[in-house]
Amino acid sequence: MPIDPHSEALFQSLLVNDDLTGYEDAEKFQKWIPEIEAYRQRLADSIPQQLAIELPKPIDTLIEEGFDSIEYLYDAKLLSCHEFEITDSSGPVVYNKIASGEWTSVEVFKAFAKRAVLAHQFTNCAVELFLDEGLKRAKELDEYYNANGKTIGPLHGIPISLKEHVALKGRIGHIGCVSLLDNIMEKDSVTAKILYDLGAVFYIRTNEPQALLHLDSGNNITGFTKCPYNLLLSSGGSSSGEGALVAFGGSVMGVGSDIGGSIRSPAAFSGCHGFRPTSRRISGRGVVGGESGQESVVGVLGPLARTIEDINLFMKAYINSGEPWQLDPWSLPMKWRDVETPKVSNLKIAVVRDDGVVRVSPPIRRGLNEVVAKLQKAGAKIIEFTPPKAQLAYDTAMTLYNADGNKELRELFSASGEPLPRLTKWYLNAGKGTKEHTAYENRELNATRDRLREEYSDFMVEHKIDFILGPAYNNVAPKTEQVYNESYTILYNLLDFPSLVFQTGLRQDPKLDVWTEEDKKHKYRSGMEELEDRSYNPETFKNAPIALQLSGRRYFDEEVVAGGKAIVDLLKIHST
Amino acid sequence: MPIDPHSEALFQSLLVNDDLTGYEDAEKFQKWIPEIEAYRQRLADSIPQQLAIELPKPIDTLIEEGFDSIEYLYDAKLLSCHEFEITDSSGPVVYNKIASGEWTSVEVFKAFAKRAVLAHQFTNCAVELFLDEGLKRAKELDEYYNANGKTIGPLHGIPISLKEHVALKGRIGHIGCVSLLDNIMEKDSVTAKILYDLGAVFYIRTNEPQALLHLDSGNNITGFTKCPYNLLLSSGGSSSGEGALVAFGGSVMGVGSDIGGSIRSPAAFSGCHGFRPTSRRISGRGVVGGESGQESVVGVLGPLARTIEDINLFMKAYINSGEPWQLDPWSLPMKWRDVETPKVSNLKIAVVRDDGVVRVSPPIRRGLNEVVAKLQKAGAKIIEFTPPKAQLAYDTAMTLYNADGNKELRELFSASGEPLPRLTKWYLNAGKGTKEHTAYENRELNATRDRLREEYSDFMVEHKIDFILGPAYNNVAPKTEQVYNESYTILYNLLDFPSLVFQTGLRQDPKLDVWTEEDKKHKYRSGMEELEDRSYNPETFKNAPIALQLSGRRYFDEEVVAGGKAIVDLLKIHST
Repeated sequence: MPIDPHSEALFQSLLVNDDLTGYEDAEKFQKWIPEIEAYRQRLADSIPQQLAIELPKPIDTLIEEGFDSIEYLYDAKLLSCHEFEITDSSGPVVYNKIASGEWTSVEVFKAFAKRAVLAHQFTNCAVELFLDEGLKRAKELDEYYNANGKTIGPLHGIPISLKEHVALKGRIGHIGCVSLLDNIMEKDSVTAKILYDLGAVFYIRTNEPQALLHLDSGNNITGFTKCPYNLLLSSGGSSSGEGALVAFGGSVMGVGSDIGGSIRSPAAFSGCHGFRPTSRRISGRGVVGGESGQESVVGVLGPLARTIEDINLFMKAYINSGEPWQLDPWSLPMKWRDVETPKVSNLKIAVVRDDGVVRVSPPIRRGLNEVVAKLQKAGAKIIEFTPPKAQLAYDTAMTLYNADGNKELRELFSASGEPLPRLTKWYLNAGKGTKEHTAYENRELNATRDRLREEYSDFMVEHKIDFILGPAYNNVAPKTEQVYNESYTILYNLLDFPSLVFQTGLRQDPKLDVWTEEDKKHKYRSGMEELEDRSYNPETFKNAPIALQLSGRRYFDEEVVAGGKAIVDLLKIHST
Repeated sequence: MPIDPHSEALFQSLLVNDDLTGYEDAEKFQKWIPEIEAYRQRLADSIPQQLAIELPKPIDTLIEEGFDSIEYLYDAKLLSCHEFEITDSSGPVVYNKIASGEWTSVEVFKAFAKRAVLAHQFTNCAVELFLDEGLKRAKELDEYYNANGKTIGPLHGIPISLKEHVALKGRIGHIGCVSLLDNIMEKDSVTAKILYDLGAVFYIRTNEPQALLHLDSGNNITGFTKCPYNLLLSSGGSSSGEGALVAFGGSVMGVGSDIGGSIRSPAAFSGCHGFRPTSRRISGRGVVGGESGQESVVGVLGPLARTIEDINLFMKAYINSGEPWQLDPWSLPMKWRDVETPKVSNLKIAVVRDDGVVRVSPPIRRGLNEVVAKLQKAGAKIIEFTPPKAQLAYDTAMTLYNADGNKELRELFSASGEPLPRLTKWYLNAGKGTKEHTAYENRELNATRDRLREEYSDFMVEHKIDFILGPAYNNVAPKTEQVYNESYTILYNLLDFPSLVFQTGLRQDPKLDVWTEEDKKHKYRSGMEELEDRSYNPETFKNAPIALQLSGRRYFDEEVVAGGKAIVDLLKIHST
């Protein structure tokens, strides 16, 4: 999918901050190629041939055609009726059926494993498959259940997928970086350990962009992951494989991580829900590339799933039964509160239609209009809201990420000399690029962040705003290598607001979702806005899921999930 | 109190990091002298003559003699029987008597105001007295009570003292810095607002060392504050005035702040209890000199009081009724849990007798021995514990404080050119002094801190340790200008462990608390240790309170306070 020459020239002209020498080294990279090939071969070999299907057309053709693999999954009946029943059940349903003895963990696992293999064939979502281990684990869980007459924990038998970043002992931890292909993890990450101890079944690790840097999926090891509803488009990132796999139904829920939108973007683009909790509720201890001491805008782990009930199950089981604070002093001993689904008519919601950084594309505008209209009809109080100082927030976050002058990334990339995907170059240019900040300057940026947190929080408290509703990105899933703007997600990382991306049930429609004449008169506020605008083209975006984002005050995660449920229920989105 | 020439030479030799030029400017400072004099005059004028007493001897003589002002308070019956009854009651008792109508807020206020004036006369604890306002507030509270038949909140009528740092609207916020004498605060700090709204009566703001930098009390505006049990000694710092005032009984409780020991040191030295909560439980929003963006080792506010019941009342009322998270997004919406006082026989306690940085003086050793013996006798399980990597923790914390190369402090001091007390020079030399760190180096230090947090937390979880018990400082209250080492308190700031300094009820005894022959063979591990050792001299330290410190895991504040109560009850310390 070539990028139009004007956009490419514009893109290049915007790369002004970072000196990109000293990263790539073609000669050094040569030595890594055999290792990359071996990795790919292992991945290919790990797909059980009895589960794989013959694709309707070669994958490149399907991609070019913007194939809807989920429609095909159902139309071509790629699973049995019982397998569909299992894999279209939410986590609470699966758990209850196992707990009551109606289903076995093995039966559940086999259905999800089959669907996961299909997901991978279409979307390239996996970086590692270990179905034998998953099956062994499921058998052990069934044995436990049969011997004890009860489940091992609240996630007993639930197939859960893991972003590769969420380390597992004895496995490679590479976060899409060639130089980490030798990095064998000595320990399970705390989150993997907790989920396992609660009964989860692991069997698949999923794809990420190079060094987790993009809201896209490109890396030099396993390539791009695709949106299952339109294979031409990106699955989002950096929890790229989770988005595609979960939306396709290859796991009950998946674990992603988010420092600038990396749970929410893949959920939005791929067609599932994704929740970025407030910091310190889900442990990040022991993840690959974690513990760098960057705490100005922190990464957090969280779930992607097809139902809000799954998100709630993940959060509640993990926190209340997993007690991450016993294993990680960064985690808060703050129980997950049971919050009732609010009545929509009791909600007061501030709606963001344009953040002042990049305007939204027609399908997002339509989605927002339709959802807001339904909320108003149901009695919600809607406040029009332009997020104050959104450009400052964006610049502050970007500058904070790169405040080390990209030193850590330069070391990571130059160790292998691997090629930099164009979005890695984009990211390295964000904020002040290679400018190495002083600790004092970092403190000043932190202080700016703190004032923004206070301003937003005060606004919500003083005006009794329950939630902020807005886009998750200015567009639906874009084409790969063309995801530039993170302003709609990053704002909430900077504020540390819990944020739920939810599906509206709507999809892009090439007939409806076109720029109007009025739109075409828009004067671009930045080169980035122009880049984003130019990458939207109604014809090729057909079927792209239309998602929105609901955010609440810091540590009011329970309210955001419950509010999300109220809205999703109102929109009548069902998982099956 | 001259410092011995050897110590002074040693002290000078240890000042190697910081270039101390560019701070002091005698000419510039001249212009500030009239303002300082006016400030002192206002302070002197604010003492109601009808409440002041004639001191038994000139204050300089009392200081030189190491006068015990608290013994004198009782022996000379400086208060009436009823005033003693009121001012020796804990907060819960005062509250209940007001709530039941037995006492009025005015009656309570007048007794505490009288005792506070005495405290100031002996210890120089106040920087601002506004008894008229306190009286007006108490009257209004009585009117509210009479009109409504109930109290306004859980701190109704409780006289609470504030470290000057805890800003009040319309008043100067100087934190002991001459250049801030014109700094009129535009808003109440969140913590002051919360306490006020819960019913507190404010009437006194208390002294601090220059820029809150010392575990001592020296500044160029109002000078030193003294330990009420021995006026020769320091009241500690940086909540210097709070320590002296609260120990003397001039308020029911006081609010201090602590980034390296600044609540715990004055509590320990002056003779009261002091609690440094885990971060983000008590709001620091709007304090003087706050919001600097330094978040590697953060300052926290917390209470000083004469009983553990008061500490619990402060925490519970503030958090559960005050809900600081409504006013400050930094504050956690984490309720204060009611935790029962544990049985001592159920406790497992790790005891620190020497942290490997600076050994303890004889009275601290005796205090620790006696308390541990009583705990063992009561059935507690005691583990000997040498805190791992204490020197690394100390160096990391000190380097993090100064990671901006003292830039902020240099600006603060050079603005007035005021003289630097010797302990300011000491502090400016801590860590790497003027070395301006990069953001990357700051991250590396944060990562070291995080590994230490994990190591300590893992140790406690794996060995089921309830608390760490140890010194609050290597000595009892030292002489002014001779408090060098902060290792015993800073460790818990770096770890962000809630830490309670409690009184053992023991006092230094010149006969008992001498170095043994064995002690004298000790080989100093650092110049700082030698400095500390040389500053202890049994004869002049008579009556100095012997305090210890109890620390628990991050966010288990409730357990630490309850554990402290169990120990204090065992030791039979009473407030009256």
